[in-house]
Amino acid sequence: MRIQYVTSSVSLKRSLENGTEEQRQTVLSIIEDVKKNGDTALLNYTEKFDGVALSSLRVTEEEVALAFKQVNSETINIIREAAENIRDFHSRQVRESWVTMKEDGTILGQKITPIDAVGVYVPGGKAAYPSSVLMNVIPAQVAGVERIVMTSPVGKDGHLPAAVLVAASELGVKEIYKVGGAQAVAALAYGTESVLPVDKIIGPGNIYVALAKREVFGDVDIDMIAGPSEIVVLADETALPNEVAADLLSQAEHDERASSILVTPSSELAEQVALEVEKQLSTLPKREIAEASIRDYGAIYVTSTLDEAIKVVNELAPEHLEIITEDAMEQIGKIKHAGAIFVGRFSSEPVGDYFAGPNHVLPTNGTARFSSPLNVDDFVKKSSIISYSEKALKQNGAKIAAFARLEGLEAHARAVEERLKK
Amino acid sequence: MRIQYVTSSVSLKRSLENGTEEQRQTVLSIIEDVKKNGDTALLNYTEKFDGVALSSLRVTEEEVALAFKQVNSETINIIREAAENIRDFHSRQVRESWVTMKEDGTILGQKITPIDAVGVYVPGGKAAYPSSVLMNVIPAQVAGVERIVMTSPVGKDGHLPAAVLVAASELGVKEIYKVGGAQAVAALAYGTESVLPVDKIIGPGNIYVALAKREVFGDVDIDMIAGPSEIVVLADETALPNEVAADLLSQAEHDERASSILVTPSSELAEQVALEVEKQLSTLPKREIAEASIRDYGAIYVTSTLDEAIKVVNELAPEHLEIITEDAMEQIGKIKHAGAIFVGRFSSEPVGDYFAGPNHVLPTNGTARFSSPLNVDDFVKKSSIISYSEKALKQNGAKIAAFARLEGLEAHARAVEERLKK
Repeated sequence: MRIQYVTSSVSLKRSLENGTEEQRQTVLSIIEDVKKNGDTALLNYTEKFDGVALSSLRVTEEEVALAFKQVNSETINIIREAAENIRDFHSRQVRESWVTMKEDGTILGQKITPIDAVGVYVPGGKAAYPSSVLMNVIPAQVAGVERIVMTSPVGKDGHLPAAVLVAASELGVKEIYKVGGAQAVAALAYGTESVLPVDKIIGPGNIYVALAKREVFGDVDIDMIAGPSEIVVLADETALPNEVAADLLSQAEHDERASSILVTPSSELAEQVALEVEKQLSTLPKREIAEASIRDYGAIYVTSTLDEAIKVVNELAPEHLEIITEDAMEQIGKIKHAGAIFVGRFSSEPVGDYFAGPNHVLPTNGTARFSSPLNVDDFVKKSSIISYSEKALKQNGAKIAAFARLEGLEAHARAVEERLKK
Repeated sequence: MRIQYVTSSVSLKRSLENGTEEQRQTVLSIIEDVKKNGDTALLNYTEKFDGVALSSLRVTEEEVALAFKQVNSETINIIREAAENIRDFHSRQVRESWVTMKEDGTILGQKITPIDAVGVYVPGGKAAYPSSVLMNVIPAQVAGVERIVMTSPVGKDGHLPAAVLVAASELGVKEIYKVGGAQAVAALAYGTESVLPVDKIIGPGNIYVALAKREVFGDVDIDMIAGPSEIVVLADETALPNEVAADLLSQAEHDERASSILVTPSSELAEQVALEVEKQLSTLPKREIAEASIRDYGAIYVTSTLDEAIKVVNELAPEHLEIITEDAMEQIGKIKHAGAIFVGRFSSEPVGDYFAGPNHVLPTNGTARFSSPLNVDDFVKKSSIISYSEKALKQNGAKIAAFARLEGLEAHARAVEERLKK
């Protein structure tokens, strides 16, 4: 791993995967086809892209029952416990509606209402991602969303992965469709005979899913378009090189474009971690991916002080930040931008990826400067409440009319004055 | 105004102004030019589009002092009082960071941090919009944003409108640039010699501003791309036709594509409002705009019951909703989607547009199904805090590793196990 002694600005920005014009055209034509031909289009694309001819899209109770037979009880218990932790954490994010009342009779407030219907896209491919089910569905449930729909591409066997179905079932999600790609996004946004449309679509996916989400945005809401993942470890000489290296590699195995960065004032730690990374890499099953990621996007930044290291961290605005220093907790106050902050050596990133409770859907690629982890607020909206009394309008009506006229909006002024007549 | 007796679904969706491909290319080339040539590009575009050759972009103290001489003290007082109301309301939206601690030593939490720097675009054109300054700047200030930059196109006289400068100055905004259009958005997103970049760009503008915001989104955050404005009045036979008509017209004068809709179970009110709209239209300064808006996007929907009318309102998901019925306050609970709810006959929409306190930047075009008024949350981000104790990791480490392996992520499992060794 490259070791760089830094004094000036650093940045982890990688170009977002925007897709080619050809991919975009493909996505647009899929969306049009689904709008026009509904379920028929969905079934055709499933045959074309996933290689499976289905007769219906919705997952049946029998399929869910079968999935439970394929997953051992220990796994089910882990999923349950993780779900409980995630539900507990997100419950603390719930906010209440409020009103404030003034002496003149004015009532102002903010009403919180859940979004009606949310569609969760669960990626398919080679692996099953039950954690993605938990992290996307639970905040919506905690927010009070009435209808939560899940959709995911089928495997070659015509089924969804057992662990995904078990996770969904444990959460009580009953409306699950065997469809993936841009066609799934189109179905969620515009509806078909068997899929009623939703108001918001969330969840990660491949480039076609990302492009489709971008296209339907505005007609429905979407979550972020996720970029490649990253970890920054802020560590001093008290950190253990083998642990730091293992955490860097856990990020690197995700994706060749993932980014793993150590920032430290200790050049000794820097050198030891670099060695450890090489050593641990050699026995990893996903060695090739991790190696490319470390080579192209990995870095060790050595600064002269811990405070300078923190400055670097704030410039990077990482998705995941680990703080492995003396008095790690005391450093949190200095962190301005980070999706999730893992504090101390026992808080290895996978603790948060799977189990502790906070969400693993986090702002990537420096967007922690302005974005947040997926949370309950993403599934509610606010409505302002404004109730003016007669007294309040008499008191303030002339001022409001004057303000409207200042902006050249005469009908606004008259609407107020209409109440003050006679 | 058309009166329709409705029993089935209604929708107010108008096509969003997406611009032409030519406009998009213009915007892309402006952004590139600003990235490459900085201030020179900004000054060139200002000369080209606004017809003014400036020597520098930043508003001087002298210009602000001059503005105060052009605005009468009554207006300044109204701006001050409105600002105070807006600040008071938004202060109630502020949220605190929190942590929760478990017996095993686990600490989980959510840290709230303001965005570092926000750019506020204030539209120019024929009128001055000081209310836009107040509504966009104050929530950012309440959130604790350190750097708030304002930008607005100059008038033919080479200055910004006096009322806009006074409003900004009253709020303590000191970094103001005389530049508008896509070039202003590019400068805010990527910086020039005189404009440091920001993290989020907000505020309404013309199609070029909207297209530029869409292009820079991802590199910086943006607020919504606003569609045309709308009002829905939910009224029963207790409402006064002249007041309802005046409110419909206050929306209609904004824009030919604005939409003004009355939903009522009273066919008598429907007919009277239709007559009143005609009558009041005839004396409006912006009669032509309002007339076109009412003709093309206005509607009066008559339902058989109030509850049915409320169903229609929820389908419309209006930006502004007025409830002018008996027991108006009791109806709020049934409203699922609305940007702002104005309750009772003394809560005419302009009360909220200018003065009461809640924000006037609201979700348009049915997006109240999933979006909120501009608020303090839009200017902060959350970071999750995860601190696991040794005990907690010993207790849960094996489960976390098992979950990681279930998803095929061996390095994740090993990162946890690295801590549990020996």
